[in-house]
Amino acid sequence: MNIVESLNALNLELPQVSTPGGNYQSVNVRDNIAYVAIQFPIYNEEFRFQGVLGKDLTTDDGTQAMQLCALNVIAQINQKIGFEHILGLNHLDAYYVASDTWDEAPKIVNGASDLFIHVLGEKGNHSRAIMGVLNLPRGFSVGITTSFTLSGKQIGE
Amino acid sequence: MNIVESLNALNLELPQVSTPGGNYQSVNVRDNIAYVAIQFPIYNEEFRFQGVLGKDLTTDDGTQAMQLCALNVIAQINQKIGFEHILGLNHLDAYYVASDTWDEAPKIVNGASDLFIHVLGEKGNHSRAIMGVLNLPRGFSVGITTSFTLSGKQIGE
Amino acid sequence: MNIVESLNALNLELPQVSTPGGNYQSVNVRDNIAYVAIQFPIYNEEFRFQGVLGKDLTTDDGTQAMQLCALNVIAQINQKIGFEHILGLNHLDAYYVASDTWDEAPKIVNGASDLFIHVLGEKGNHSRAIMGVLNLPRGFSVGITTSFTLSGKQIGE
Repeated sequence: MNIVESLNALNLELPQVSTPGGNYQSVNVRDNIAYVAIQFPIYNEEFRFQGVLGKDLTTDDGTQAMQLCALNVIAQINQKIGFEHILGLNHLDAYYVASDTWDEAPKIVNGASDLFIHVLGEKGNHSRAIMGVLNLPRGFSVGITTSFTLSGKQIGE
Repeated sequence: MNIVESLNALNLELPQVSTPGGNYQSVNVRDNIAYVAIQFPIYNEEFRFQGVLGKDLTTDDGTQAMQLCALNVIAQINQKIGFEHILGLNHLDAYYVASDTWDEAPKIVNGASDLFIHVLGEKGNHSRAIMGVLNLPRGFSVGITTSFTLSGKQIGE
Repeated sequence: MNIVESLNALNLELPQVSTPGGNYQSVNVRDNIAYVAIQFPIYNEEFRFQGVLGKDLTTDDGTQAMQLCALNVIAQINQKIGFEHILGLNHLDAYYVASDTWDEAPKIVNGASDLFIHVLGEKGNHSRAIMGVLNLPRGFSVGITTSFTLSGKQIGE
């Protein structure tokens, strides 16, 4: 079962690959690591889940927002690398914007973690870090930054 | 002198290895890099050093909190990899939660940096980044994210 | 045209390499990756661009501040590695401190991104992440963390 079929089984679809909002690459490959730029909860160019968790947005919103960030990561790798060339996900940095009393960050980040593992299997295993930031561009409530290791090592590339 | 003896000479002990608070790996190895999930000031499952530096917690508390984060990193690598397989620590991202007037972050992060270098020698050398975040899960005042390079390169693993 | 000439063509000069403000390395090489510590807008030991974007500092200040961070990264790599040994820039984590209403982060981070690409060409391509933090050491408004891949792979180093 390929990526698209795995997602369809969850009633999910890959979003359109977003274009960089600045002078950078969405996916930058150096040696055998693919560095993926921060992905936000954007669906086909529509900005979603803007605001503050625990104030404007619920925990369930946050989970969906993190899942959408992960879908954007998957769309980027699927289009620019292809998962057949991927050894696996390395690490996930997750950022959230929340009120002082809201403390459900580990739960919502599972929205991303669960999706990676469900869709990619062992290739989706990862370590992660979570931090509550003051703000993110465009008022997004969450964002994630990832990197992947490629399976074919190109020595001296 | 091994890791445990080096720590004992400082009157320190390795904490129990904490279990992930979500669907991720505490240590994720891809090719020759071990990515370690964010470690918090937890001692044998007891949450310590929760609150805001410069308000609820002193600079000395912060130094001890950062040291405890580093002890948790060392415990993870010691159990899951073994330092005999480690080329060295790569980089340390340190997060802190502080009041607006408190500006002792570089000093407290030395609580982690000093420990890595004392216990691991040259293998403990690292670059680092420090950022003051709005909040961290469970009200922790600090956290650190690290990665290590393994000494035995497995090509095409 | 070398790095210094490229910068001079932009009326820019490499700052003096700053010394670490703690027990860490400004550039830490492990296997074929050079990890660079967070660089702040420091020019020859003078702290610049302290304060809050959208309050104490303008968007144009922020762009110059990010550019100065990038100049410090370039100075570090130029002195400690040499760009002839660099395959390229991997990824850029950019931190900013701003008021709630200011939303020009992607624009100011181009101050760093544009400089890397202008001066380094293809070697300057990178992915990036941007996050708005609560505070940074010494009241700096911005900072960036980077890593580079070396061109000569030393297997089993």
